[in-house]
Amino acid sequence: MADLPPRVDIHEEGPREGFQIEPGPIPTADKIALIEALAETGLRHIQVASFVNTRLVPGWADAEAVVGGFKPREGVHYSALWFNENGMSRALAFRDRLTMTGSISLAASNAFSIKNLNRGHAENLDAMRRQTAVHLKAGIPVTRVGVMAAFGCNYQGDITPAQVVQTVADGMAVAAEHGCTITDVSLADTMGWATPIRIERGIAAVRERWPDVRIGLHLHDTRGLAVANAHAGLKLGVSKFDTTVGGLGGCPFAGQKGAAGNICTEELVLLCEEMGIATGVDLDALIEVGRMAERIVGHVLPSELIHAGSLDAFRRKAA
Amino acid sequence: MADLPPRVDIHEEGPREGFQIEPGPIPTADKIALIEALAETGLRHIQVASFVNTRLVPGWADAEAVVGGFKPREGVHYSALWFNENGMSRALAFRDRLTMTGSISLAASNAFSIKNLNRGHAENLDAMRRQTAVHLKAGIPVTRVGVMAAFGCNYQGDITPAQVVQTVADGMAVAAEHGCTITDVSLADTMGWATPIRIERGIAAVRERWPDVRIGLHLHDTRGLAVANAHAGLKLGVSKFDTTVGGLGGCPFAGQKGAAGNICTEELVLLCEEMGIATGVDLDALIEVGRMAERIVGHVLPSELIHAGSLDAFRRKAA
Repeated sequence: MADLPPRVDIHEEGPREGFQIEPGPIPTADKIALIEALAETGLRHIQVASFVNTRLVPGWADAEAVVGGFKPREGVHYSALWFNENGMSRALAFRDRLTMTGSISLAASNAFSIKNLNRGHAENLDAMRRQTAVHLKAGIPVTRVGVMAAFGCNYQGDITPAQVVQTVADGMAVAAEHGCTITDVSLADTMGWATPIRIERGIAAVRERWPDVRIGLHLHDTRGLAVANAHAGLKLGVSKFDTTVGGLGGCPFAGQKGAAGNICTEELVLLCEEMGIATGVDLDALIEVGRMAERIVGHVLPSELIHAGSLDAFRRKAA
Repeated sequence: MADLPPRVDIHEEGPREGFQIEPGPIPTADKIALIEALAETGLRHIQVASFVNTRLVPGWADAEAVVGGFKPREGVHYSALWFNENGMSRALAFRDRLTMTGSISLAASNAFSIKNLNRGHAENLDAMRRQTAVHLKAGIPVTRVGVMAAFGCNYQGDITPAQVVQTVADGMAVAAEHGCTITDVSLADTMGWATPIRIERGIAAVRERWPDVRIGLHLHDTRGLAVANAHAGLKLGVSKFDTTVGGLGGCPFAGQKGAAGNICTEELVLLCEEMGIATGVDLDALIEVGRMAERIVGHVLPSELIHAGSLDAFRRKAA
């Protein structure tokens, strides 16, 4: 257990990730209320919106209203997502309240790149070259390489650690061309192929090549292994995780089975706190926010913990 | 990873555990169909019914019809649950088709013992003395000590490994009084307090005292950590798990939040098979049975995997 991190940084993506898949429009005021409630729990990183094509993603037609509408809390970093120059420009209008950093986003699976981004890996690298130039020109630092499908792919099957290393290396090369220093590599289990062993091997391979880079995990609970995978990461010292409160983004209704949720923020917090790893988060407050998220979307969320309550709540009652 | 077991024995408890909490009566024919379908997946241990007070548990009023009605499959061990002599007698009528073994069932939490069994630990030990005598007289071997609330308790709070060891020792003493040899100790996370660290410490403590006993884990996914806990057990060589297909016994509807499901059989199978641990189970067939269980209960079950599909199914498509 020598490698357990003393504390973890949790990047809450519930507001951004959670609402775009909901069938009904979520009122802007509810999105803002959720963001403000999350900031009260001790979370320090909250992704609040997507600046995407509003015709394709009508759930984020109100991105400007949300990002301009919430009351920022001191010490909390708010971020947003964008995929092109237009989205970036929309985000830049809120530069005073958003922490803006640029990513070089790649997929370890060429098949996924084609299916999801509509361009193969080589073409995507070119797009990332252009995007990096645009980011730097706008004064947005590019410090992160993200690897989607880092542990397997529905269209390509298994992904090897060597493929992940090659993908990261390709991203590092783009960064180097532009004189950027990459401090963070994010490995995303986009389609729920990770297992603890694959997490261990993937991290070991990336860390061997880039020992000074900070590795983050973006895990989906597609097949129920997300918490076990996070635990494997923690034991290797991983200290940065993307999560969603309540498991927002997932949905227990079989009709929407494509929407596999991220690892639940509160379940990761429970795991960490019970292992002596600091999160800075008030778990009971976070559980209440998870219940609030459930009321907002109007259906049960995947999180078990928001239904069961924290251990500390029972400890207090038992004492 | 040297301690990973080469194979695990999975004790499927879905038919017994899953139906008693459902609000509507489940037709006997559906229970039988599920049992027979489970036996076709390669599972070798299936708990098929509870011989309990039919007034208190109307969902098992048809225990005799179920146990007498399914077509046994060669090589599969079918078991049932009972809590008193009357239940045992009802089970004995099906001795030709049931594998009957006796347990000494204790709780590591005195408060839970009082709440759940309506008797404290000392009184429960007396009850287990009487029950062990009854079992032996009926020719039922008593080979197992079960410890409920082995990792924590909603009424008493944290449970230490020392308390677990003491509880097992008390059960071992009852067995010794009757000349029984205990081969199996089952540690149950009855209320979802386990974490990987607590699993490691609990197992280490029991194993240090009784190095030759086989330890099994009965895990509930009350707070989302069940798979991580199972993984911690596997890494310590635990090779016996109680599970329920689909996570039967749990329910995603907040109104029934007391009903936290067991770890899903298929998620444990996925974890094991992807780690190279044999289960003997055809995962795709099991996922189909999980979907069948969902149709039978008429609502979505907690399992993520039955909604997402196996990795092998995608591997075949990708190949």
